[in-house]
Amino acid sequence: MELLSTNLCFGGEHRRYRHASHALACDMEFAVFLPPAALGPEPAPVPVLYWLSGLTCTDQNFMQKAGAQRLAAQLGLAIVCPDTSPRGVNLPGEDDSYDFGSGAGFYLNATRQPWARHYRMYDYVVTELPALVEARLPVTDQRAISGHSMGGHGALVCALRNPGRYRSVSAFAPIAHPSQCPWGEKAFSGYLGDDRERWAAWDATLLIPQARERLPLLVDQGTADEFLDTQLNPEALVDACERHHHPIQLRMHRGYDHSYFFIASFIDDHLLHHAQALGLR
Amino acid sequence: MELLSTNLCFGGEHRRYRHASHALACDMEFAVFLPPAALGPEPAPVPVLYWLSGLTCTDQNFMQKAGAQRLAAQLGLAIVCPDTSPRGVNLPGEDDSYDFGSGAGFYLNATRQPWARHYRMYDYVVTELPALVEARLPVTDQRAISGHSMGGHGALVCALRNPGRYRSVSAFAPIAHPSQCPWGEKAFSGYLGDDRERWAAWDATLLIPQARERLPLLVDQGTADEFLDTQLNPEALVDACERHHHPIQLRMHRGYDHSYFFIASFIDDHLLHHAQALGLR
Repeated sequence: MELLSTNLCFGGEHRRYRHASHALACDMEFAVFLPPAALGPEPAPVPVLYWLSGLTCTDQNFMQKAGAQRLAAQLGLAIVCPDTSPRGVNLPGEDDSYDFGSGAGFYLNATRQPWARHYRMYDYVVTELPALVEARLPVTDQRAISGHSMGGHGALVCALRNPGRYRSVSAFAPIAHPSQCPWGEKAFSGYLGDDRERWAAWDATLLIPQARERLPLLVDQGTADEFLDTQLNPEALVDACERHHHPIQLRMHRGYDHSYFFIASFIDDHLLHHAQALGLR
Repeated sequence: MELLSTNLCFGGEHRRYRHASHALACDMEFAVFLPPAALGPEPAPVPVLYWLSGLTCTDQNFMQKAGAQRLAAQLGLAIVCPDTSPRGVNLPGEDDSYDFGSGAGFYLNATRQPWARHYRMYDYVVTELPALVEARLPVTDQRAISGHSMGGHGALVCALRNPGRYRSVSAFAPIAHPSQCPWGEKAFSGYLGDDRERWAAWDATLLIPQARERLPLLVDQGTADEFLDTQLNPEALVDACERHHHPIQLRMHRGYDHSYFFIASFIDDHLLHHAQALGLR
C-alpha cells in the first residue's frame, strides 16, 4: 500500500493510496479521511463510512466536493472512498461509454466475459478494501456505507446482501431498481448476461423481500434530479419496503438536482445518521 | 446576462451566468451563490463576498470545493466568483503556461501589448462585475473580498487601492509581495513591462505604506504550503504592516498545504469575519 499524497483537512488527514487489488487483478487507488481522533498524540481507531461514488467518478469527487470532512472530523468518523471501477485493464470497449466499463463498475461481480476477471467491485468494496484499511490504518471494523446514484445502488446492495456487516446504510439519489432502468439494463446485461433472474441479486428493490436484517434505509432524493424519471425509481424501493415491512425513510427534496451541490446540502444529516448507529453520539 | 445553470444548495441557489464584459472585451462567465434570505417569499437583498481564485482556476473551483455555502446560507451572505482571466481572446501565447495568460489574469490592468486590450481583470472585479450583479441580482453594495493565492493577492490589492469600497478583506495563502517572486515577476513584466516602479501599484506589501484606510487584513497560511518559501512571502506583508501600523492577523496553520482542503478547513472563520464587518451577526 503506497501513500500517494496527504493533505491536512479540519485537523485530520486526507490521504490517497495505491495498492495491488487481488479482487480486481489491477492496481487501484483510493482515498481516506482520518479524523483528528485517529491521529495525534493519543490516537484511537475510529469507525469508517464507506462512500461509493457514481458514474464517471474516481475516489476524489466526494472528498473534494461533498464537504463531509468538517463534521466527520468532529464526530471522529473516518471516510473511505474507493474508485468506481477497475482501471487500466485494457478490455476492449472499456472506455467507450460513460455508463459501462471504466468509471462504471456498478459494485457487482461480473460473470460475463471479458469482464468477469477484473470487474468485481462488489468483492473489492465489501471485503478486500475493508480488510486492507482495517489492517493498515487506525480504523475499526465498525462500518457504515453510503453512496450516490450508481454508488447509492451499490451501498444499498452491499448492505442488504451482508447482514451484520454494516451498522447503517444511506443513499443519495440511488439507482433504486436497476433491473428496470436503462443504466441498469445496460450494465447488468453487459456484466451478467441476458438472464434477468441473475440480475435480482444486484437490485436493491428485489433484495428487500428476502432481507434478513431490518437495517433502516435512509434515502435522499431531489425532485429536480434530471435522472429521477428515467433511471432512479425510488418509489419502487419504497413500495417493496412497505410490502415487506422494511424500514425506509425516503426524503424528497424539492428543487434539488443530481449534483454534488445536492449531496453537500444534506451530507451532514447522513453523517449524523451513521454516527448514531456507530455509537459516536 | 444569460443564466447558464442553477443548482439548489443549502436552501439557496448556485447559479452560473455568461455576459459580455466591456472591461475585458470578451464574454465572461461567473458564478454566484444566493442564500435563502435573498430568495423565497419575502426576499431581501444581501451583501456579497467577492471571491478571487488562484492560478488555473475558473469560477467553479471555489463553489465546488470550499464548502462555503453551508455557512453563507445561514448568515445570509451572497458569494460571487469571477473567472481568473479573459477567455478566448486569441492572443499569441495566452495558453502557453499555467501562470501567465488564460487562467492567470492577476487582477491587474495590463498596459503592455498585446495584453492591454483584454487583460483588465482589476477593472472587471472592482467595478464592472459588482455593478452588474448589484443591478441584476438581489444583492446590496455592501461588499467583502477574499481570495486564494493569486486571488489572495487580488483581494488585498483591490481592498487596499479602494478605501471604502469593501467592508472587509481576507486572503488564503496570498502572493503577498508579487514584485519579489517568480510568479509575480513573470506576470508583472509580461502585463506591465519591465519598469518595476509601475509594479508597486499592484503589490499588497508595497501598497501598505500609502494605505488611506486601516482595513484589518486577515491572512491564513499553511506551513506545509509548497509555494510558501518561493512565491508567497507573507512575512514581507506583515513587516510592512508593522512598520506602518496597519492591522493584520496572519495565522500560520501547521501542516496545511496550498490546496482547497486547507481553504475548506478555515473558510468558516473567514465568512464569520466578513459577516461581522457586514453587520450580519
